[in-house]
Amino acid sequence: MGEIYFDNSSTTRPSQAVVDIVVKTMTDDYGNPSSLHKKGVDAEKYLRESRETIAGVMKVSANEIYFTSGGTESNNWALIGTALANRRKGHTILTTAMEHPAVAEPLRFLESQGFVIKKIPVDRNGVLDLEALSSMLDDDVILVSTMYVNNEIGAVVPVAEAAKLIREKAKNALYHVDAIQAFGKYRIYPRQLGVDMLSVSGHKLHGPKGTGFLYIRNGAHVSPLIYGGGQQNGMRSGTENVPGIAGLGVAVREAYTDFDAKIDHLYDLKERLEEGLDGIEGTVIHGLRGREGAPQIVNVSILGVSSEVLLHTLEDHQIYVSAGSACSTHKRLASPTMTAIGAPREESSSSVRFSFCEKNTAEEVDEALKVLRETVPMLRRYRAK
Amino acid sequence: MGEIYFDNSSTTRPSQAVVDIVVKTMTDDYGNPSSLHKKGVDAEKYLRESRETIAGVMKVSANEIYFTSGGTESNNWALIGTALANRRKGHTILTTAMEHPAVAEPLRFLESQGFVIKKIPVDRNGVLDLEALSSMLDDDVILVSTMYVNNEIGAVVPVAEAAKLIREKAKNALYHVDAIQAFGKYRIYPRQLGVDMLSVSGHKLHGPKGTGFLYIRNGAHVSPLIYGGGQQNGMRSGTENVPGIAGLGVAVREAYTDFDAKIDHLYDLKERLEEGLDGIEGTVIHGLRGREGAPQIVNVSILGVSSEVLLHTLEDHQIYVSAGSACSTHKRLASPTMTAIGAPREESSSSVRFSFCEKNTAEEVDEALKVLRETVPMLRRYRAK
Repeated sequence: MGEIYFDNSSTTRPSQAVVDIVVKTMTDDYGNPSSLHKKGVDAEKYLRESRETIAGVMKVSANEIYFTSGGTESNNWALIGTALANRRKGHTILTTAMEHPAVAEPLRFLESQGFVIKKIPVDRNGVLDLEALSSMLDDDVILVSTMYVNNEIGAVVPVAEAAKLIREKAKNALYHVDAIQAFGKYRIYPRQLGVDMLSVSGHKLHGPKGTGFLYIRNGAHVSPLIYGGGQQNGMRSGTENVPGIAGLGVAVREAYTDFDAKIDHLYDLKERLEEGLDGIEGTVIHGLRGREGAPQIVNVSILGVSSEVLLHTLEDHQIYVSAGSACSTHKRLASPTMTAIGAPREESSSSVRFSFCEKNTAEEVDEALKVLRETVPMLRRYRAK
Repeated sequence: MGEIYFDNSSTTRPSQAVVDIVVKTMTDDYGNPSSLHKKGVDAEKYLRESRETIAGVMKVSANEIYFTSGGTESNNWALIGTALANRRKGHTILTTAMEHPAVAEPLRFLESQGFVIKKIPVDRNGVLDLEALSSMLDDDVILVSTMYVNNEIGAVVPVAEAAKLIREKAKNALYHVDAIQAFGKYRIYPRQLGVDMLSVSGHKLHGPKGTGFLYIRNGAHVSPLIYGGGQQNGMRSGTENVPGIAGLGVAVREAYTDFDAKIDHLYDLKERLEEGLDGIEGTVIHGLRGREGAPQIVNVSILGVSSEVLLHTLEDHQIYVSAGSACSTHKRLASPTMTAIGAPREESSSSVRFSFCEKNTAEEVDEALKVLRETVPMLRRYRAK
């Protein structure tokens, strides 16, 4: 049945409308948005339109949206920019133990610069311990950074509840949310949630690679990460990536079109896969099931079969999944999330992630289950030899 | 005769081959290069190929090329990353007074962090004062940053001579070169030149916007600017912009194909325009002429006509030029280069930049000169009223 791409949390295939606008802005409207002549003015329109689309779905002001080169830059900027701008107020930064390296690593850098990083614990399903968070909040906390949806197991952080605690108990703290796996899957309204900064990546939602944005609430005190010609109100310099930004705007608009139907479809796929996996002996599904977790992610350990062996076996059948997070698979370290939730080694070494997009089908799920049922017993025997 | 685009130092139109590979990597080979399966492996090939193309034309190792989101990020990374990594050795950073804001502004940030920034003077034509540089070099200098080609007037910095002085007199200094206007116009070999870091932007040479690279000599001690999943050997994290990087590689390959013929053509255009401008009374050409300056840039003051009035007059004839550097035109400040070379206000307020690409023609230059000859007398009379 051709390729089955179940690795949409690693990256997605851009939609045709995204490709079309990228081509148009590369061939016709290729001007520099800072140019004063018509070619510049034409290019600038794409930036404005994209910014307004994004601000619209989040119900924020267009001038609170800053385009970046992707989720990693957005996270680095939010964290380093907040630390730099607020270091006279305090030195403590709170985060969870299950963050993506794009949050964990800039925080490690800040630790080397004298900031104190403390980890909010999560339980066996990746559920954040709000009581622990509450007890860690005080006036020395200048920043709290949590994900919205965990990239490995789809755990959902209670962002609104966390924000409420932060506002009550840490008057100097800004709250940054890494929404890279959540945006396009949840309706996210930073103002209602009480979030000060929010990171999004374009290529996780059928937008172009090399694109993303950071929402910064007007009034939040954050320094730039990249200085220069003063683009984007002096907050993120550099000639804007017009094709990328235009494509990102289209991707965001598409993601929130027929939104509920898409999410229902993703949950149908998720539940179908979970039920099928339950029928295979010796499987452990991580994170909360069905609608208690994110719609697009199923992380399962098939005990006795290593992640990579299973990944390549599925690949032989043109089924593409991920062993842990794609973004860190080149390093042979234990997955941060599996470590944070206290998964035993047997489970973390055998976990694979299926991640859907709305174009995946029930037939594809059935095909993957069929391949698993056929191959897993053999793979286990092979290992036993 | 249709649009005449003489603003190629602001940005260029991507070539068809660049657009084609961007489309291919968005529609077919859309995988995440970090993924272990076939889609990841297919995507990774584009990164390797692009890196090898670039390393090839510069005669450096492929692992000395790091992809970024553009020239501004490359410059920020080189400057901030060097300062962070070497602050125990010294605090002085040397630069010129005619740098682009993408160098000047991160240096201003570093000044706020306790570094001492000193400016190497330039003369009336933007020629760097090597004796002054020599006298400023000592063991407290950890970084020298100069452009290769000035973006406003096309002045060429004697990079090899500067590098030689730096090696002789400042043993703790790394030499960074902003080659954003030079790459593709000069054959640049960092090792022979004695350059430690070199910044390049894709969209100045018919590559995609949102792309660029930083060359870092193996062994040069530079910290990352952006931390995360460990891509690019841990030096620049974030899912690589595969379409952008693939497009950049194609653009670089094209730029250095039939290189000498293209450069000769650019100089022909430059000299044709300079001669024509000499025939118009009250014009002042900035920077050195012909082959003593860069091939693609002619900056001229048409005395008595303000930059913006002339820009919009030419625009009415579908001729697109720049008033000063496009990257800073949204700010109404005096141009850094005009200030650095000591141009009188009358000249700086009336300067416009023509910048060519190899697809521009002699007929287009003649048309622009014709429009200038027809309109300038009228514009001057208008102003006198």
